[in-house]
Amino acid sequence: MKILGIDPGLRITGFGIIHKQGNKLSYVASGTIKTPDADLPQRLKTILQGVSEVVATYRPDCAVIEKVFVNVNPQSTLLLGQARGAAICALVGADLAVAEYTALQIKQAVVGQGKAQKQQVQDMVQRLLLLPGTPSPDAADALAVAICHAHSGEVLSALKLLAPGLTKKGLRLRGGRLIG
Amino acid sequence: MKILGIDPGLRITGFGIIHKQGNKLSYVASGTIKTPDADLPQRLKTILQGVSEVVATYRPDCAVIEKVFVNVNPQSTLLLGQARGAAICALVGADLAVAEYTALQIKQAVVGQGKAQKQQVQDMVQRLLLLPGTPSPDAADALAVAICHAHSGEVLSALKLLAPGLTKKGLRLRGGRLIG
Repeated sequence: MKILGIDPGLRITGFGIIHKQGNKLSYVASGTIKTPDADLPQRLKTILQGVSEVVATYRPDCAVIEKVFVNVNPQSTLLLGQARGAAICALVGADLAVAEYTALQIKQAVVGQGKAQKQQVQDMVQRLLLLPGTPSPDAADALAVAICHAHSGEVLSALKLLAPGLTKKGLRLRGGRLIG
Repeated sequence: MKILGIDPGLRITGFGIIHKQGNKLSYVASGTIKTPDADLPQRLKTILQGVSEVVATYRPDCAVIEKVFVNVNPQSTLLLGQARGAAICALVGADLAVAEYTALQIKQAVVGQGKAQKQQVQDMVQRLLLLPGTPSPDAADALAVAICHAHSGEVLSALKLLAPGLTKKGLRLRGGRLIG
């Protein structure tokens, strides 16, 4: 299974693709989409086309995107929201299922604790995917959200094996936790 | 020239298409795109597909979208931003030029004053487009932003006639005002 992770941003959108076979994760690709210093519609178009291109090139089976936090500056929140909307549009436009995780969930899944520093995330991503060097922060965050989803899927499978009745009862898994 | 106006929202996105021939404006169509009570990616997909369908059906020459205001609730701002991003993606994905106006500019263009009530906007839209009845608030807002853009173009043409040197000097018009 190929998982595409997205770390959305108006200036820089990170992407990372990993391959999951059983419990084994391996690195496929990662990078960033940088928008030009143009008006907003043009920048959203760059994100839409960039993410669409990544999807067309690597043909992932599913996609995951980081839930963005609300910025102290409301105008920045609005801009980030629009960038995230553009990235999601590229994913749903390609008929990909899109999962969402908060930064806290991602850090917990990758580093083991929710308050991990950016450098720790980069280090753990490098280690888990056996990369020769440290990925850039944006690419690392995108790979981290993909890893988080891969782990979360494991939990789901495990839960299904342990208690097949749970998910049949209308419970579903979100961010590694069963919800009603 | 056919102008498509969009009033973005996560629950309801209004659209309105008007036709402009010289100084004459006429009504083509209007309506709303309502999103299901589903997760965010699914709702954005509905907006993306809905606006894309409107574009495919009416083939406008350009598009205009209302600049949304920052909500007191940051979480709402983030959601609205993503909805707006999805609507813009449908427009730029169809290679349409997208203009943006604030609610203040739209009300000034349609009613004549920036603090106009919603009802006044609906009444003026009905009068300007010779509609048999009052359009719904969301459709009226979408038609209003299209009318605003049509008027703004008139101002541009008028300015070009009066002072052809102005726009040659790198000045351009935004929201009916010349900017450097």
